[in-house]
Amino acid sequence: MSEGVEWALHSCLNLAWIGPERAVTAARLAAYHDLPAAYLNKQLQALARAGIVSSVSGPKGGFRLSRPLDQITLMDVVAAIEGPEEAFRCAEIRQQGPGASPDDAGAGATECAIAWAMGRAELAWRRELAGRTLDAVRERAESQAPGAPDRIRSWFANT
Amino acid sequence: MSEGVEWALHSCLNLAWIGPERAVTAARLAAYHDLPAAYLNKQLQALARAGIVSSVSGPKGGFRLSRPLDQITLMDVVAAIEGPEEAFRCAEIRQQGPGASPDDAGAGATECAIAWAMGRAELAWRRELAGRTLDAVRERAESQAPGAPDRIRSWFANT
Repeated sequence: MSEGVEWALHSCLNLAWIGPERAVTAARLAAYHDLPAAYLNKQLQALARAGIVSSVSGPKGGFRLSRPLDQITLMDVVAAIEGPEEAFRCAEIRQQGPGASPDDAGAGATECAIAWAMGRAELAWRRELAGRTLDAVRERAESQAPGAPDRIRSWFANT
Repeated sequence: MSEGVEWALHSCLNLAWIGPERAVTAARLAAYHDLPAAYLNKQLQALARAGIVSSVSGPKGGFRLSRPLDQITLMDVVAAIEGPEEAFRCAEIRQQGPGASPDDAGAGATECAIAWAMGRAELAWRRELAGRTLDAVRERAESQAPGAPDRIRSWFANT
């Protein structure tokens, strides 16, 4: 998984703490965690295409959350950044070479048993991601670092 | 996930069908599914390092399964090929830049809430992989393609 997922998740939490009334540029969001701005901008654009953040133009422009954290799941963010493809991609090698079988080919709709088994595991992963909102993550983060929200708000207000 | 996982899983099933008494070279295993032999050889070496297959030297050398399929889980093969790292790698960006906080740093042992949440999902994935043996996959594959085991045995016996 690309580091973009981690960056996107932190940025969503930071945007929530800053408040939805204020748009923040990719450059400033990047500066807060010392990340390359151009690359973070790409992740934010991907979040915008997925409807998770909105891009606001103009001198006070930037990004802000499109909806509250309790309406954004980890799966939403992972899918926005990584795309909808499964991590395990079945290339159907059972249909290649001398191993290609008439019964496999004839079945056609019959999914390869290996792809099926790997897909079951991926489903468990996706279910877990879809079952947890960013608000639950925020809550846990605040219980661990109670000073974080105020620190973030003040840094973004004063610089 | 690399295509090597798919190749390794198919190769383990093929080795089981060929039978543990016979070693097969990477070149022949690759030819059966029209795969690049050098790359499949790398996957088989990784399986050997993990103790899933054994490498046999000599003129009748090659690879064979080290243990029955019901003692090999999907997780064993994925870990052998992909390594033990988590798919989501936390780079601890919360500790970088102005966002680095005294309470986060002080906690030290406190896992980032984002890494924790992503880790829970990965755990669900790993549990599913660890809970399914290659023998269960073989069983499903045989019910879908009953002719596969005989076809494989005869191709490897006659070429």
